[in-house]
Amino acid sequence: MEPAQEMIPQAGTLFGVGLGPGDPDLVTRRAARLIEGATVIAYPALAGGDSLARSIAADMIPPGAREILIDLPMTTDRAPAQAAYDAGAARIAEALEAGQDVVTLCEGDPFFYGSFMYLHARLAPRFRVQVVPGVTSVTACAALAGLPLAARNEAMTVLPGPLDDDALAARIRSADTLVLMKVGRHLPRLRALLAREGLLDAAVYVERASLPSQRVMPLAEAPNAAPYFSMILVTKGADPWL
Amino acid sequence: MEPAQEMIPQAGTLFGVGLGPGDPDLVTRRAARLIEGATVIAYPALAGGDSLARSIAADMIPPGAREILIDLPMTTDRAPAQAAYDAGAARIAEALEAGQDVVTLCEGDPFFYGSFMYLHARLAPRFRVQVVPGVTSVTACAALAGLPLAARNEAMTVLPGPLDDDALAARIRSADTLVLMKVGRHLPRLRALLAREGLLDAAVYVERASLPSQRVMPLAEAPNAAPYFSMILVTKGADPWL
Ligand SMILES: C[S@@+](CC[C@H](N)C(=O)[O-])C[C@H]1O[C@@H](n2cnc3c(N)ncnc32)[C@H](O)[C@@H]1O
Ligand SMILES: C[S@@+](CC[C@H](N)C(=O)[O-])C[C@H]1O[C@@H](n2cnc3c(N)ncnc32)[C@H](O)[C@@H]1O
Repeated sequence: MEPAQEMIPQAGTLFGVGLGPGDPDLVTRRAARLIEGATVIAYPALAGGDSLARSIAADMIPPGAREILIDLPMTTDRAPAQAAYDAGAARIAEALEAGQDVVTLCEGDPFFYGSFMYLHARLAPRFRVQVVPGVTSVTACAALAGLPLAARNEAMTVLPGPLDDDALAARIRSADTLVLMKVGRHLPRLRALLAREGLLDAAVYVERASLPSQRVMPLAEAPNAAPYFSMILVTKGADPWL
Repeated sequence: MEPAQEMIPQAGTLFGVGLGPGDPDLVTRRAARLIEGATVIAYPALAGGDSLARSIAADMIPPGAREILIDLPMTTDRAPAQAAYDAGAARIAEALEAGQDVVTLCEGDPFFYGSFMYLHARLAPRFRVQVVPGVTSVTACAALAGLPLAARNEAMTVLPGPLDDDALAARIRSADTLVLMKVGRHLPRLRALLAREGLLDAAVYVERASLPSQRVMPLAEAPNAAPYFSMILVTKGADPWL
């Protein structure tokens, strides 16, 4: 929380800007203003392909803005992704050192399983950083499904789907409300696990919440081949009457 | 997810609108538009006092809008609060039945420990409901503290501070990232508990994130008398380099 000693005083500020789950209308007023006034914009994209973050912000990006694309390789190996973030951070650092602010676009919230964290780790020790929180996919999925997440003294646990069954099962048992992120190709395994835990009937599957192609259905009816932007919500049906 | 059979087709829509953690700039564009166009606005307030939700939206509420204030009694007993939500829901239902839309203001996100859930439980069986997700206090506190919450395969657990020590301790041990909500007068007990679990050095206290009076400090230095709008974040210092 203390500025590091190597900070460059005349450098620009790095903004990590949350854009919400996909609908440009779920962008905050602060995020919209920062993007509309940006001269340098950075964002990650998978293997030269589309960036959801870029597409959410598309109508707000000023025509003259310079764009720094961080091209992430399509692999689960760490080293190539690290190299991509190193290279992206170096390009961002150049702009910051030249006194320019850099607005980094992040789907959802920057500090909630967001790619911005990797840039933050590399750049926060040397530059001023401001993070603008965004609507997460979790509450967007709950809103679409009409499912209250947690009330009163209920505990809520967020688990990444790629975790193995043993790590998941122990945590599932101690949760009241359960959120499974990064479902994608793990869907059949996660569905089987929830069925063994007696939670299949309470589990709801949500895909691309807030985007035009959004879908919500009981997990029991969800496709085996789920897209990356999908999530499972399990609320233990607590009494919401207070 | 299916419309209930008793739905009144010509009735208005109940909007549950998340306003974010306090800064009016963290309101989404959709929430701002809904409030600016509202004819009936509802919100809870504690014992006739101030409503944070009302104050966040103040500049967006049209002069002619009718306001339905849900006056919550200052008590931890359930019955008086239930009666207040019953009475508030009845007044909202009247407006909906008369064909008016009702925009309900909610601090943070409506379905994340939000008071809107109690209105939703009472009104969703009979009326069309749309929930507009908002920025939660969790990511707002993380943004202010400069603390990435969770990355990769880390699990994140949200726990209400009023839970007793045994319920908390078990869940604290299985969490990677820990969020303690509703800290308030429980702060000394929660601090002692985290110290026993060896987590005091990693714990950060955040108060009124995004409001002018916001504060962030190590939990070790936090005041014993914490306000209601305060939170503790414990991130286990995972390696954010990917
Ligand atoms: C790398 S995480 C990014 C999370 C994001 N920073 C946030 O705050 O929601 C990607 C995962 O978030 C979830 N996700 C993101 N957007 C989503 C959406 N619109 N609908 C459903 N799930 C979504 C999916 O589980 C996806 O695998
Ligand atoms: C009834 S819950 C409402 C949560 C809200 N619906 C949300 O999405 O963040 C109230 C608790 O949220 C947390 N909280 C809400 N706003 C906050 C803020 N601006 N700063 C710190 N904590 C906050 C505190 O822990 C407080 O006790």
